[in-house]
Amino acid sequence: MLTLSHPRAPDGHGSEDCRAVSEILSRIGDKWTVLVVQVLGRGPARFSELRRAIGGISQKMLTTTLRQLERDGLATRTVYPTIPPRVDYELTDLGRALLVPVNALGEWARENRPRIDAARRRFDAQVEG
Amino acid sequence: MLTLSHPRAPDGHGSEDCRAVSEILSRIGDKWTVLVVQVLGRGPARFSELRRAIGGISQKMLTTTLRQLERDGLATRTVYPTIPPRVDYELTDLGRALLVPVNALGEWARENRPRIDAARRRFDAQVEG
Repeated sequence: MLTLSHPRAPDGHGSEDCRAVSEILSRIGDKWTVLVVQVLGRGPARFSELRRAIGGISQKMLTTTLRQLERDGLATRTVYPTIPPRVDYELTDLGRALLVPVNALGEWARENRPRIDAARRRFDAQVEG
Repeated sequence: MLTLSHPRAPDGHGSEDCRAVSEILSRIGDKWTVLVVQVLGRGPARFSELRRAIGGISQKMLTTTLRQLERDGLATRTVYPTIPPRVDYELTDLGRALLVPVNALGEWARENRPRIDAARRRFDAQVEG
């Protein structure tokens, strides 16, 4: 049982810290962010290539996702002065480092998807029954 | 450069699979879910204890988050027939297994938060400048 007057994260960090971490987690755990980071993990890509590789993403959502990755220092945007201008996106060292835990979580999700799907079916059947 | 006619995830899984994984990631990467899973990682807890441990979460949001964890087979809800009834939440084996990659991602976020914060300040200064 928890009887904490000063809630702390399990590793001994304060809840303030825990909250900041969870804010970052929810940003990078965002569905489109994970997909874009995984595609950029294969190498630099242009906007149109990213859009093709990630079916179903709107132009606006891809623009927003890339801008957030750029803001977080996880990807760079390079404009080449060709006609028409070529714009490349690429992971930074920080972005590439992020791939390691993201892929571990992805691996967990991939391995355990059948269990989660089965749990959902059981839960939904119970609610309906 | 990416010139894929059949987009595939970096590890060779199809994009269909990649999408399902990213859906699960975005569910478990949700800010409140991560916090609740981390608190439950310390042991079973009652609703009121969870609410106290996670400052700022509304009753409605905690109810929703716990119900989703239950639906995904990551936590159990046990009602004890006391007066008033006692309701305990506890991670399942699947939920405890999830803690491993979640903590790795949390560790990454904790270590790299200063870098991300600095990148954001640089980006925002450039946009304003």
